Amino acid sequence: MTTQQLTEQILKKKSFLCIGLDVDLHKIPQHLLEEEDPIFAFNKAIIDATHQLCVAYKPNTAFYEAYGLKGWKSLEKTIQYLNQNYPEIFTIADAKRGDIGNTSSMYAKAFFEDLGFDSVTVAPYMGKDSVEPFLAFKNKHTIMLALTSNEGAFDFQTKMMDGKELYKQVLETSKAWRNSENLMYVVGATKAEYFADIRNIVPNSFLLVPGVGAQGGNLQDVCKYGLSTNVGLLINSSRGIIYASKQEDFAQAAAGKAKELQQEMEVILRAKL
Amino acid sequence: MTTQQLTEQILKKKSFLCIGLDVDLHKIPQHLLEEEDPIFAFNKAIIDATHQLCVAYKPNTAFYEAYGLKGWKSLEKTIQYLNQNYPEIFTIADAKRGDIGNTSSMYAKAFFEDLGFDSVTVAPYMGKDSVEPFLAFKNKHTIMLALTSNEGAFDFQTKMMDGKELYKQVLETSKAWRNSENLMYVVGATKAEYFADIRNIVPNSFLLVPGVGAQGGNLQDVCKYGLSTNVGLLINSSRGIIYASKQEDFAQAAAGKAKELQQEMEVILRAKL
Repeated sequence: MTTQQLTEQILKKKSFLCIGLDVDLHKIPQHLLEEEDPIFAFNKAIIDATHQLCVAYKPNTAFYEAYGLKGWKSLEKTIQYLNQNYPEIFTIADAKRGDIGNTSSMYAKAFFEDLGFDSVTVAPYMGKDSVEPFLAFKNKHTIMLALTSNEGAFDFQTKMMDGKELYKQVLETSKAWRNSENLMYVVGATKAEYFADIRNIVPNSFLLVPGVGAQGGNLQDVCKYGLSTNVGLLINSSRGIIYASKQEDFAQAAAGKAKELQQEMEVILRAKL
Repeated sequence: MTTQQLTEQILKKKSFLCIGLDVDLHKIPQHLLEEEDPIFAFNKAIIDATHQLCVAYKPNTAFYEAYGLKGWKSLEKTIQYLNQNYPEIFTIADAKRGDIGNTSSMYAKAFFEDLGFDSVTVAPYMGKDSVEPFLAFKNKHTIMLALTSNEGAFDFQTKMMDGKELYKQVLETSKAWRNSENLMYVVGATKAEYFADIRNIVPNSFLLVPGVGAQGGNLQDVCKYGLSTNVGLLINSSRGIIYASKQEDFAQAAAGKAKELQQEMEVILRAKL
């Protein structure tokens, strides 16, 4: 999928919502545990109920790896289900990978080719040659951590390096990498005031924004500074949507929460664009 | 396994060699492709031939994820085989994971509990709360990237932050984290001259050292500055050992290469300790 197609989907659906599929068997409705593949059954129901309200789904690989082979199988089934039934959806493997060049190539192959995701999240610490192997894939997107939404972001990311914060160095530096047009960035919603500075560095790049909802970020503040002419934002919500109810009505409850965010986004889009 | 037990193994075997099990189906002997699980068949043969010459094995997860479910199964079988047959071996999941707290906990559970590795590599970019969930596991070890062996290490790791290089900030900062005694660090062998400075910051921590061999690092130089009183080094070699031959004799050829390194290490240990 191209970023232009992503923007078209956003304008069509009046939503730039991404739903995080972070499935914890302790938190899903207990009747699903009788299913052969409870994680996939949960994801399928959530996707079927919410796909018109969002433009992207983001399974975090940790939640699948934690269940070993079974979990990996659930992840495969989830991305296959999305690609077969909702090809207009942008898919994100939230994997935060990154390694030396030949190894990053293996990860890129795993997520882009074998699993068929549109994008994967990566960590910047190992620099250019750990990220460029991901960028080499046409119409695939590499979403690099810049400023994350957790407390630990202040340990290194916001510290000064050569006159500016590390996360700004990461943004600046990455713009010179080969195929950098395939880069997007993770920017946490908990620091909405930083979005103005970030837009000075990457005016048009898509930003994947976690931290709205469960982690305390505010949608209005993020959009005020973060929206670009091509929208350029994917707002992620995971627990606030998928665990809206633990009863049989969990999928409808999730759709209700997604609808609230979609409607808020519709108002914002109408006012801004 | 405790670090004391690891040092005991090193002194017993006169080796601080770690063998990287980065299995690429294009590079293994072609007769193995007829096996039901070629990756596991390759690993089993390499392990059986080399386990007396090394103290650790390090599968890089990228090489297994690249083969999807089958690859994950091969990884499971490899760690089970090691734990059942060679419990004295220190096992490292080279995964370079790291995420917000609750998600890092899922990764820690996956690698330490479900798969049963002794240690896992993690990335420092997201800071304290992305690493502490790993550190909470008793007698398990978290090997954090400090200074990597690739060219991209110079993009951020060696740049100055608050008066010292980022990788030194990472080392310093992490010492204050809860259960930091469970930390080890990745330090690339391609920059042997940095080991003296690193030992000033973490005098006794184990350092996992990639980059000897294929990436050009020199064992003598690393040991000159990097050895601690408890040895404190695990020198990794992957391609230089496991791909020593593509013929039927591949396991013996790997043992031959491992033996060369082990003998070099034996001389160094005798001189230094």
